[in-house]
Amino acid sequence: MKGTVGELGEFGLIRELTAGLPRTSAVELGPGDDAAVVAAPDQRVVATTDVLVEGRHFRRDWSTAYDVGRKSAAQNLADVVAMGAVPTALLLGLVLPADLPATWAVELMDGIRDECHVAGAAVVGGDVTRGDAITVAITALGDLAGAAPVTRSGARPGDVVAVTGWLGWSAAGHAVLSRGFRSPRAFVEAHRRPEPPYHAGPAAAKLGATAMTDVSDGLVADLGHVAEASGVRIDLRGADFDVPAQMADIGQAVGVDPLRWVLSGGEDHALVATFPADAKLPARWRVVGEVLALAGGRAEVTVDGVRWDAPGGWDHFATE
Amino acid sequence: MKGTVGELGEFGLIRELTAGLPRTSAVELGPGDDAAVVAAPDQRVVATTDVLVEGRHFRRDWSTAYDVGRKSAAQNLADVVAMGAVPTALLLGLVLPADLPATWAVELMDGIRDECHVAGAAVVGGDVTRGDAITVAITALGDLAGAAPVTRSGARPGDVVAVTGWLGWSAAGHAVLSRGFRSPRAFVEAHRRPEPPYHAGPAAAKLGATAMTDVSDGLVADLGHVAEASGVRIDLRGADFDVPAQMADIGQAVGVDPLRWVLSGGEDHALVATFPADAKLPARWRVVGEVLALAGGRAEVTVDGVRWDAPGGWDHFATE
Repeated sequence: MKGTVGELGEFGLIRELTAGLPRTSAVELGPGDDAAVVAAPDQRVVATTDVLVEGRHFRRDWSTAYDVGRKSAAQNLADVVAMGAVPTALLLGLVLPADLPATWAVELMDGIRDECHVAGAAVVGGDVTRGDAITVAITALGDLAGAAPVTRSGARPGDVVAVTGWLGWSAAGHAVLSRGFRSPRAFVEAHRRPEPPYHAGPAAAKLGATAMTDVSDGLVADLGHVAEASGVRIDLRGADFDVPAQMADIGQAVGVDPLRWVLSGGEDHALVATFPADAKLPARWRVVGEVLALAGGRAEVTVDGVRWDAPGGWDHFATE
Repeated sequence: MKGTVGELGEFGLIRELTAGLPRTSAVELGPGDDAAVVAAPDQRVVATTDVLVEGRHFRRDWSTAYDVGRKSAAQNLADVVAMGAVPTALLLGLVLPADLPATWAVELMDGIRDECHVAGAAVVGGDVTRGDAITVAITALGDLAGAAPVTRSGARPGDVVAVTGWLGWSAAGHAVLSRGFRSPRAFVEAHRRPEPPYHAGPAAAKLGATAMTDVSDGLVADLGHVAEASGVRIDLRGADFDVPAQMADIGQAVGVDPLRWVLSGGEDHALVATFPADAKLPARWRVVGEVLALAGGRAEVTVDGVRWDAPGGWDHFATE
């Protein structure tokens, strides 16, 4: 395809973006009408929305359009599974500069479509308009399939804290890219394209998870929301985290304690959940801490009993 | 409230924006977790998304933040009722410059909340992030309550075409504002804050509407999508439209045939539907045309048998 999105025009672009979109059994009416119709057999629908802006959430010189698509879909679909729900559908709001090559928009959509396929969801609707900064607004929907939603407020003293998925890989990849390198490839790839453990979310609900969230801003920061919402203290054991040898090497090369990436790095969209101490967890869940009573203390997250003092999260209005 | 959104910070801003958000019976879990949970008693959910960008869809010197909120919510909620569904929930993705007064964001939210109240929906989730251009991405959800979705593809030869709501008022108001005037107030208000006939959407489904859409890009343009999707020709009768005297006056003052606003003006979010000829329509529906067989002709909209030659719609990538 040649030309810019401006030359293609709104309706030409929508035609290109929606061509060949696969349907799933959940799609009762896909793109092209005033609204989509999606199956919600549970009689409740889980819904979440996120906005990504070029320069702030992605860079075109670091990530391909395809990777931006995968990543922006992944972070929304991860929020759905973090409730214990199965992703069903995704809607896309796109702001694109008129001089953007149309291929960029099509490849973005390819990435969104492929990530939806991994998660079992379908793209059912969207909107495109012109603007100066590429902006990707995504809403993801999901079905609880009879499970109670797993919120952030259900953690109870005595519960164990367990994680599944990747932790710190995206942050290590970001550190590599920030210094002008393109390898080690595994970490750069992890930054460009996270792989949330989609199946683990609904499975955790069935395993009796009492609270759950996905790690988007950093494990300590995101668990901090669980601690606050549940009115508990959460203590992590540093030694129970797995720091891969190659991540340790990168840490040494750039002068960063890799545990900081593991504990404070976001964007991998791992899942962290609390479970009753007697829950039988599959091997892919790693127990890394426990839930403690407040006992007059603060609802916060500690590591080996000490408050974690590395930057614990990400404020989207803070100056970088 | 003093200060900018940057000074308030992401979490402070979210706290301000979600404070005092009303819940409805459809809200099983509101803002503050990974995702919201919304009732979907019909076992299907209607979902639609739209993005508004400052300078393209609204101007801060023409509209207050409150009006932008009302309007951006209205255009999404109108898409939900145009399927014959009852609006239940709305999710909001916001891009805001760090130097924007925080009051602007709070007033925008007030407008969104109030428009949701009119439509019977609740704000259940959102995301805010920093960027150069104010961008409002909204997703609205709705419930069909047992009705079949009224798509654009069901119009049949012999059906009548009927409209309800305002037509051309926003366009006339835009013409007034474009020329530096602030009155007549009714039209300026209609441009700043459309009033979609929310109740008429689900009611039309019960009245047997065969096709329906809301008028966002202009009646002829939007009915053109119905004609194409249904494989029919649609003929409107110019004399059956109501051109208010004051609109005619504005037309004379600015040298525009006001029927052009009625037929081509968007953003009022009137509803236009096709019904079987024997449908008993309440007085607020005005029959303005009929559905004809293609008979070898084009799937298009004519006015008094003639192709309407005024600009029929709005391409969001076209140069203004």
